[in-house]
Amino acid sequence: MRLAIEEADGLVHAAMMRAGFDTDEARIITDHVMGCELRGVSFGGLSRALSLIDRSAGAPRRPIRVLRDTPVSAVIDGQDQNGYLVAHRAVMLGIEKARVSGIGAVGAYDTWYTGMYAHYLEIAAEAGMVAMAMGSSGPRVAPHGAREGRFGTNPIGFAFPTADRPVILDIATSATPIAELVLAQRTGRTLPEGTAFDATGEETVDPMAALAGAIRVWGGHKGSGLAIVVQMMGILVGGGAMPADYQECGFFFLAMRPDLFGDEAAFRRRASDYAEKVRGARPEDPARPVRMPFDRSAETRAGILARGFIEVPDGIVAELVRIRNEGVRPGRP
Amino acid sequence: MRLAIEEADGLVHAAMMRAGFDTDEARIITDHVMGCELRGVSFGGLSRALSLIDRSAGAPRRPIRVLRDTPVSAVIDGQDQNGYLVAHRAVMLGIEKARVSGIGAVGAYDTWYTGMYAHYLEIAAEAGMVAMAMGSSGPRVAPHGAREGRFGTNPIGFAFPTADRPVILDIATSATPIAELVLAQRTGRTLPEGTAFDATGEETVDPMAALAGAIRVWGGHKGSGLAIVVQMMGILVGGGAMPADYQECGFFFLAMRPDLFGDEAAFRRRASDYAEKVRGARPEDPARPVRMPFDRSAETRAGILARGFIEVPDGIVAELVRIRNEGVRPGRP
Repeated sequence: MRLAIEEADGLVHAAMMRAGFDTDEARIITDHVMGCELRGVSFGGLSRALSLIDRSAGAPRRPIRVLRDTPVSAVIDGQDQNGYLVAHRAVMLGIEKARVSGIGAVGAYDTWYTGMYAHYLEIAAEAGMVAMAMGSSGPRVAPHGAREGRFGTNPIGFAFPTADRPVILDIATSATPIAELVLAQRTGRTLPEGTAFDATGEETVDPMAALAGAIRVWGGHKGSGLAIVVQMMGILVGGGAMPADYQECGFFFLAMRPDLFGDEAAFRRRASDYAEKVRGARPEDPARPVRMPFDRSAETRAGILARGFIEVPDGIVAELVRIRNEGVRPGRP
Repeated sequence: MRLAIEEADGLVHAAMMRAGFDTDEARIITDHVMGCELRGVSFGGLSRALSLIDRSAGAPRRPIRVLRDTPVSAVIDGQDQNGYLVAHRAVMLGIEKARVSGIGAVGAYDTWYTGMYAHYLEIAAEAGMVAMAMGSSGPRVAPHGAREGRFGTNPIGFAFPTADRPVILDIATSATPIAELVLAQRTGRTLPEGTAFDATGEETVDPMAALAGAIRVWGGHKGSGLAIVVQMMGILVGGGAMPADYQECGFFFLAMRPDLFGDEAAFRRRASDYAEKVRGARPEDPARPVRMPFDRSAETRAGILARGFIEVPDGIVAELVRIRNEGVRPGRP
């Protein structure tokens, strides 16, 4: 069904409060969830809001702790709280440290579902920071040349402020998003050949078998190497080496003030000029102009904001409304 | 011809001194050049030593300057000196800052030929640092979906110390190394279809035409995005946005002390254990066990060190001997 953007925002926020988050926490989660919807990343949107509530409900939450605090770094013990909150805290702390010290590097562990990294990276770019983010998770992706999972879909991303639209790269290092497997399973489709392995390491096109096994890494040995780097960074900050699903993820965030390395205004102008040169490169297909990282997301968001509504499956809206009105069902998983 | 390793080392060092580098500079360059030979990256070895001398000879060298020095960062004005010296200085300075402040981020600009990043990353890992390195250069690689160059082969790499062999990733973001084009040109081979564009943007299999045009980026839009990130980082630290060949490269180096984020010994053990788990993943091809980044390089180096010699084309040895004995020919380019 169609939901006006403000309506969807209000619904998620109210459901989150009813599920036990305070106003600020509900706002952090809602901004992230709505950020996904506005970029067309619907699996990170309202349906993810429900998963967050499912996984959070019941157990009392222990407060996030900041450890090993230095002027340039910190580690956050996420205390098994959801990554939307934990990673957000890491990002805000990293930005704060970079404001004061020039650089802030903050790791986080004991968390899960860290969400869409472009969301954090855009916050950093808006704060005027050059930034990097990485996140490790459970072994659902096979290294290059292997049939067994050894790391997660391990996103890595970077942000640069410019004189206009920021440059934001946010890439997963798996060949396929897990969400695509879940979608294929729900809709009864098979996967393309060569996408995945089952739990015994045999190739499979069955999404259910792939979800119990592993998917292929993106980019051959180079992409596999990057995925390993992300997993190592997760291990560095206290994340699990090969954690079980939806726990013990590692998150790493780095922010740097651009004026450490030169005049900031001059950098922003040069960055914007360079972005225009990339966009102006002669395209392979004249109908498809070359894009900078984040261009497509920014255009999608502008389009959705202009039309004013998002499309959400009826069942998801109904469940959020039920939670807002009646609270979380006791005994939900 | 075969050259004993110590003989090759001595020859390069002597030629570098004769070409006007002091003892320490000659040692830095020689270690890097020999590091390439020992990893089987021969285009970065003795032949590169000759290119370095060619490009350096003649003009008096202006001293490298350190600017914007803070406890956590600096920028190096390379003064058009070769990257083997400039990037090495950036790396050593970054490590020094990280020893004191926990983190060191050092950029460098006005340099060229920054070499093999695994070399710098191994220095960092041996110093006990988690590190990242990136380098921008001239527009010889086309963005995803474009027919014109907008960035260089733009390496990006990371290093992690472990309880045994470090984990070092060093990847170029172009689909093909420039050295392969040069080799194809020298040996009269054509390039595989779909590798490159000529100066007008048409596809070409002629290596000469490709060298005047652009090659494809690795990894589709994700690899292209990473290459753009590297170019942006080069711009951030003062490198050219789209510099001419062999000048105005940008170099970025980050070092972090692992104990910022947890107990260092525990991290090293966990990292080594994880590396073993990756190596132990069931391989796709039973004859090809899964490797960690750097495993192949380390094995190649161990093999070459064990046999005690390297193979170098006669002409390259003769030219280095001539320079050592007679000095650099006046008027060389």
